[in-house]
Amino acid sequence: MAKIGYNVAVVGATGAVGEQMIQTLIERDFPINKLTLLSSARSAGTVIKFKDEEIIVEEAKPESFEGIDIALFSAGGSVSKLLAPEAVKRGAVVVDNTSAFRMDPNTPLVVPEVNEEDLKNHKGIIANPNCSTIQMVVALEPIRKKYGLKKVIVSTYQAVSGAGSQAVEEMYNQTKEILDGKEPTVAILPVKGDKKHYQIAFNAIPQIDVFQDNGFTYEEMKMVNETKKIMHMPELKVAATCVRIPISRGHSESVYFEIDENGVEAGDLKNLLSASPGIVLEDNPNEQVYPMPNNAAGLRDTFVGRIRKDLDEENGFHMWVVSDNLLKGAAWNSVQIAESLIKLDLLSK
Amino acid sequence: MAKIGYNVAVVGATGAVGEQMIQTLIERDFPINKLTLLSSARSAGTVIKFKDEEIIVEEAKPESFEGIDIALFSAGGSVSKLLAPEAVKRGAVVVDNTSAFRMDPNTPLVVPEVNEEDLKNHKGIIANPNCSTIQMVVALEPIRKKYGLKKVIVSTYQAVSGAGSQAVEEMYNQTKEILDGKEPTVAILPVKGDKKHYQIAFNAIPQIDVFQDNGFTYEEMKMVNETKKIMHMPELKVAATCVRIPISRGHSESVYFEIDENGVEAGDLKNLLSASPGIVLEDNPNEQVYPMPNNAAGLRDTFVGRIRKDLDEENGFHMWVVSDNLLKGAAWNSVQIAESLIKLDLLSK
Repeated sequence: MAKIGYNVAVVGATGAVGEQMIQTLIERDFPINKLTLLSSARSAGTVIKFKDEEIIVEEAKPESFEGIDIALFSAGGSVSKLLAPEAVKRGAVVVDNTSAFRMDPNTPLVVPEVNEEDLKNHKGIIANPNCSTIQMVVALEPIRKKYGLKKVIVSTYQAVSGAGSQAVEEMYNQTKEILDGKEPTVAILPVKGDKKHYQIAFNAIPQIDVFQDNGFTYEEMKMVNETKKIMHMPELKVAATCVRIPISRGHSESVYFEIDENGVEAGDLKNLLSASPGIVLEDNPNEQVYPMPNNAAGLRDTFVGRIRKDLDEENGFHMWVVSDNLLKGAAWNSVQIAESLIKLDLLSK
Repeated sequence: MAKIGYNVAVVGATGAVGEQMIQTLIERDFPINKLTLLSSARSAGTVIKFKDEEIIVEEAKPESFEGIDIALFSAGGSVSKLLAPEAVKRGAVVVDNTSAFRMDPNTPLVVPEVNEEDLKNHKGIIANPNCSTIQMVVALEPIRKKYGLKKVIVSTYQAVSGAGSQAVEEMYNQTKEILDGKEPTVAILPVKGDKKHYQIAFNAIPQIDVFQDNGFTYEEMKMVNETKKIMHMPELKVAATCVRIPISRGHSESVYFEIDENGVEAGDLKNLLSASPGIVLEDNPNEQVYPMPNNAAGLRDTFVGRIRKDLDEENGFHMWVVSDNLLKGAAWNSVQIAESLIKLDLLSK
């Protein structure tokens, strides 16, 4: 039997995703006995309201995880690599929202609507996939299950909050500067640690994360490799182009895909997706109903619309997939994994 | 022999594209004897500076085209349908930047880098293609010519100026309202004449022009049908998803394409495109060099980058194509057609 309340830690509590994790724990009325909020030394001491409590954020150290049942990590890959094993050593199960363990064959990479069963193989750490991957596999999985899936080509329209709160601030500042007729201040995007930085306000940047030797960015390769792992389809053909646009919250994706089965119509896919978990179908061209990031912000669902059959390929289709990158793309998927761990009784060892 | 100077009319002289046409005629030092600026009755009387002259905009009427050699139309499809034949009747050659005659089998649809030769079949009207089509075929044509082309899947990131100056004003107003903590005023986008209107500031709208019965928008079908016509490839597989993003100027496109030939590498395509007319190759991932709309604004070229081979398809490639939708996408391509007409001696009848 599951316990009544769990000792939960949020690592990276002061970040954009950490904030949404705390908010989601509240909204889901997650069964918490004690909530521990952790961060870097720099942010320690911050006071965060949780329901009626005021919790002081502490510096994350190996000892911080004594007595913790579930630790939600979102403080960057290096923090996860260092501290996630320490948390596991002390009996916690870690849900890690960084890329540190995602492609580790011993770590399940989980989107509950798609591969909840993979949680059963966990060895202490469960990886939360990349934001742009999650919403796409939520939309593709019901299709794969019923009709088979051969090929996916995706182009993304990604919000700035995926690069953190500072990047969002940068976008708003640049926007203000441009409206005031000033030169925009450019310092963070596209990638904080990369050599060059470009204006995002009233612009589009076709680089998210650093470039790989094959000409794809790391973000694009995350979409390729994580999709194959989550869907258990190493043979799936996937390619991605990832682009940052001046939006604060909500990733959009133009997805072309080919299925195995013949004779399927767009209406069949609409019926299927409207009844699938985690999905809200917004698809009525006559009434100009389709998903938009501005409508998805703050909501946990994945919104799908503009489903239409390709004009040439009998098995090809197009769709438009939108979700809040901070929620289903990060905080909500992590909390949802924690809920699944409780449901499947996978916490106590 | 070509005349020294031509009598040129710009129809829609006070619009976003008309303004760029006048600017482009100046920049290109177009051989003009007399420039006539025409508009609706509403905008007639406006004074526009052309070099050292001040020209009073007149209401466009059938008689306005007496003595005109070249008429550049960009005042909406209904104006073109009404007045382009009147201009032709009076001896003018019309370059029409609306969708009125684009798919008419008797009207050449021309991008000079691609099918300048088609001008020879003109019967008085030459159609200027849709903005998003033009930049894509400029990038695809050298590839088609050398390696053959089978299939194209494009997702666009289109600037608001494609919907006119009022739409750009709407975007900036909404942006200001949102920064001031107010509700944004929504009245024009996505399509002025359509039933519903949505916020574009800090949002993405997957609708450009009205929906067709097949679930594609008219903008998407323009990309499909015009590409086939311009490239003389009715058999080409093309599909498009067209999306409006909060940018004032410069369309971007994520283009996946499959060629006929085997064994081609990304480097071959880079070499080819860097030496092709109208194209500037911006492709150096190591130095974070790639095209962006903010850099393309105000320039006449088509910028191509992020060229890379697909991970699965031997003949599949991806690229990122950016151009100023008001210039190569409209005003410059129209003026360029006029220059080709002079060069090929196709004006005098």
